[in-house]
Amino acid sequence: MTKVAVLGSGSWGTAFANVVADAGVAEVTLWARRAEVAEAIGREHANPEYFPGIGLNPRLAATTDAAAAVEGAGFVVVAVPSQTLRANLTAWRPHIPRDAVIVSLMKGIELGTSRRMSEVIVETLELPADQVAVVSGPNLAREIAERQPATAVVASPHEATAVRLQEICRAPYFRPYTNTDMIGVELGGAVKNVIALAVGVAVGMGFGDNAKASLITRGLAETVRLAVALGADEHTLAGLAGMGDLVATCSSPLSRNRTFGERLGAGRTLSEVIAETSQTAEGVKSSESVLALARANGVDMPITEAVVAMMHGDLPPAEALLGFMARSAKPERYGV
Amino acid sequence: MTKVAVLGSGSWGTAFANVVADAGVAEVTLWARRAEVAEAIGREHANPEYFPGIGLNPRLAATTDAAAAVEGAGFVVVAVPSQTLRANLTAWRPHIPRDAVIVSLMKGIELGTSRRMSEVIVETLELPADQVAVVSGPNLAREIAERQPATAVVASPHEATAVRLQEICRAPYFRPYTNTDMIGVELGGAVKNVIALAVGVAVGMGFGDNAKASLITRGLAETVRLAVALGADEHTLAGLAGMGDLVATCSSPLSRNRTFGERLGAGRTLSEVIAETSQTAEGVKSSESVLALARANGVDMPITEAVVAMMHGDLPPAEALLGFMARSAKPERYGV
Repeated sequence: MTKVAVLGSGSWGTAFANVVADAGVAEVTLWARRAEVAEAIGREHANPEYFPGIGLNPRLAATTDAAAAVEGAGFVVVAVPSQTLRANLTAWRPHIPRDAVIVSLMKGIELGTSRRMSEVIVETLELPADQVAVVSGPNLAREIAERQPATAVVASPHEATAVRLQEICRAPYFRPYTNTDMIGVELGGAVKNVIALAVGVAVGMGFGDNAKASLITRGLAETVRLAVALGADEHTLAGLAGMGDLVATCSSPLSRNRTFGERLGAGRTLSEVIAETSQTAEGVKSSESVLALARANGVDMPITEAVVAMMHGDLPPAEALLGFMARSAKPERYGV
Repeated sequence: MTKVAVLGSGSWGTAFANVVADAGVAEVTLWARRAEVAEAIGREHANPEYFPGIGLNPRLAATTDAAAAVEGAGFVVVAVPSQTLRANLTAWRPHIPRDAVIVSLMKGIELGTSRRMSEVIVETLELPADQVAVVSGPNLAREIAERQPATAVVASPHEATAVRLQEICRAPYFRPYTNTDMIGVELGGAVKNVIALAVGVAVGMGFGDNAKASLITRGLAETVRLAVALGADEHTLAGLAGMGDLVATCSSPLSRNRTFGERLGAGRTLSEVIAETSQTAEGVKSSESVLALARANGVDMPITEAVVAMMHGDLPPAEALLGFMARSAKPERYGV
């Protein structure tokens, strides 16, 4: 039986490990940094911090020993905060089997290098690109832990790798579609968090569904512009990993990025919101790396610009957003 | 000063007439079928049936005399139920100035003929196509009556006509973008109502935001396939009149089509839901004409198929929707 290691027991790492256990075609071990989390999963089949009251698959094993988790693994699934990926991988590298497929669940762009998560993996582990894959899509972790129906995209430059990954994570409630456009899938996931911050601010300011839908639509348009400039297929962004993920995140009160923006929009200061946010809001950091990528490639991203200005505290959120809504009327031009 | 007649005092007709009044560059008269509605608008500056408590612009005039409303009008804006358009226009034709631009606010496809609203206008009034325009986008009428910020698309085959229309309806809270792709804009609006019914059913059945976002994304994909087969630019559907309108409608509890689906999904019968729905849910009828168009053009529209099956009562909604979610896992292919 194929062995799968999931490195990271946050909400999405836990929920995805549970999907693989439910799929039932692989043996799955979850690595947790903290002993109490590994114990709760192994003994009580629960992750009470993130999913109180939800029962996990009893076949899901857990450990705090990363070397033991990855031993003999055919797939190593990584779900750590984006900005810690390089350091974590460097530490784990000696233990990871050389032929394992490395799967990213992360949605971010590395600060400083502007690298996508799969690029950091290829670089740090010195792997061929077709040994790397990514899972993305409209995947609010709590709903998936509750086994509510969802679709997803599993992407790898090598279609056969995507198909193998699809097999190990296809559960009755979790429907993965394959794709080979890594750039499109990863950009969709990373920029989504930035747009969700902007939508959150709008919601916090009391804007309605018309304004929210306008921001989501224009947000996807700027995502497409950037992704296409980097080599993606624009249709990927119109699919589950682009539009699907963006719509789910921006609709849900469960989204960390949207909630972060909402608090800002309601008038709290940036430092207050950071202080009261326990989980990572990936978009806060990614907004800077996304904007750096956009500038390096000559792409106009007005919503991302506004988010960065808010996150640096130079611009009050209300002003940033109203500035965007008030841009002069003109012909509608989408994407490229 | 340009004269604008708005024919139809339902929620969107009233809200749009109020936008034109707020824009302040044209004189606007709303035609209402019922005397009490015309009186409330003219004397109390209110349409209490649709917008209780919301004050309309006092410059907005109202009448029950269609001939008087359109006399000397440069723009005749039509906002009647889609399936009554041909009969209404035929009655109004003798009074409509021959050089007036006819603007459709309607989102539907004519049953029997499968004609878009602008095609019905051109045919019935024997006008050149560039004398017809359409307004669409994420425009929940109540929010616009409340003067909350929104964007829209104003389209005409003739860009100069779209620009003239943009000028008369640009208000501080209402931001119209021009477009020349009538097919894309009208198909986006018509199919949206069908997809919103399906999303409503999913919500009524208790599905979460992941499933909802998947349906919205796959729903836009089938809209794109049909629209492109009919000659539209797929980018129009990725814009405000496609994705924007779909996302706003599917997010909002104010949407009639979503609400209609929600009641079905919660287990009520079709006849019960029809009995308790006072306003028109355009998608109920349009689903048939959209499917007819799809079949005539060899386009696969599985969500629309499921909606038609539900509306004909052959298939219980739960079964139709689960059938769609359970289609076999495969590569993701978007649109064309």
